[in-house]
Amino acid sequence: MSTLSDSQRRTLLQPLLTSGWTVVENRDAITKKYEFSDFNQAFGFMTRVALKADKMDHHPEWFNVYNRVEITLSTHDCGGLSTRDIDLALFCDSL
Amino acid sequence: MSTLSDSQRRTLLQPLLTSGWTVVENRDAITKKYEFSDFNQAFGFMTRVALKADKMDHHPEWFNVYNRVEITLSTHDCGGLSTRDIDLALFCDSL
Repeated sequence: MSTLSDSQRRTLLQPLLTSGWTVVENRDAITKKYEFSDFNQAFGFMTRVALKADKMDHHPEWFNVYNRVEITLSTHDCGGLSTRDIDLALFCDSL
Repeated sequence: MSTLSDSQRRTLLQPLLTSGWTVVENRDAITKKYEFSDFNQAFGFMTRVALKADKMDHHPEWFNVYNRVEITLSTHDCGGLSTRDIDLALFCDSL
């Protein structure tokens, strides 16, 4: 697992940055805030992401309060963004 | 729902402060960090707390990364700690 190449950043990362994801300051990581109708919906989302994350063995950093979920993705093993983060970000957006 | 009385703080809150909960700076809220063996265990804990929280209609603020869960409790309706926070804190500790 290695960090995204310049080419991958253009082709894979850039589309996420136009769909609500932003780069975290001073880190090679991306973050997004989701808002749901209530806690039940928010935690339902988290549960689906958690099952996917555990299957991928790639886990998010996330914060939840009531209907809001803030999720941050980065790959510990390579110290920055990898294709795993892209995959998990796309999965989150697909839900 | 009202904030804890001085008497309740002595009898209900104080025991939590000797079992790993701490008062949040500049807020009438308590927080605790739990550490589990892996993500699966951490999210399992969160799921049990979530089901309880949704049943109580009283929701935590929480952060998770891999095997760590940081949970903060306060009651929005009364702007501080209430008996609901005590109940949810005791439930978390019971798991």
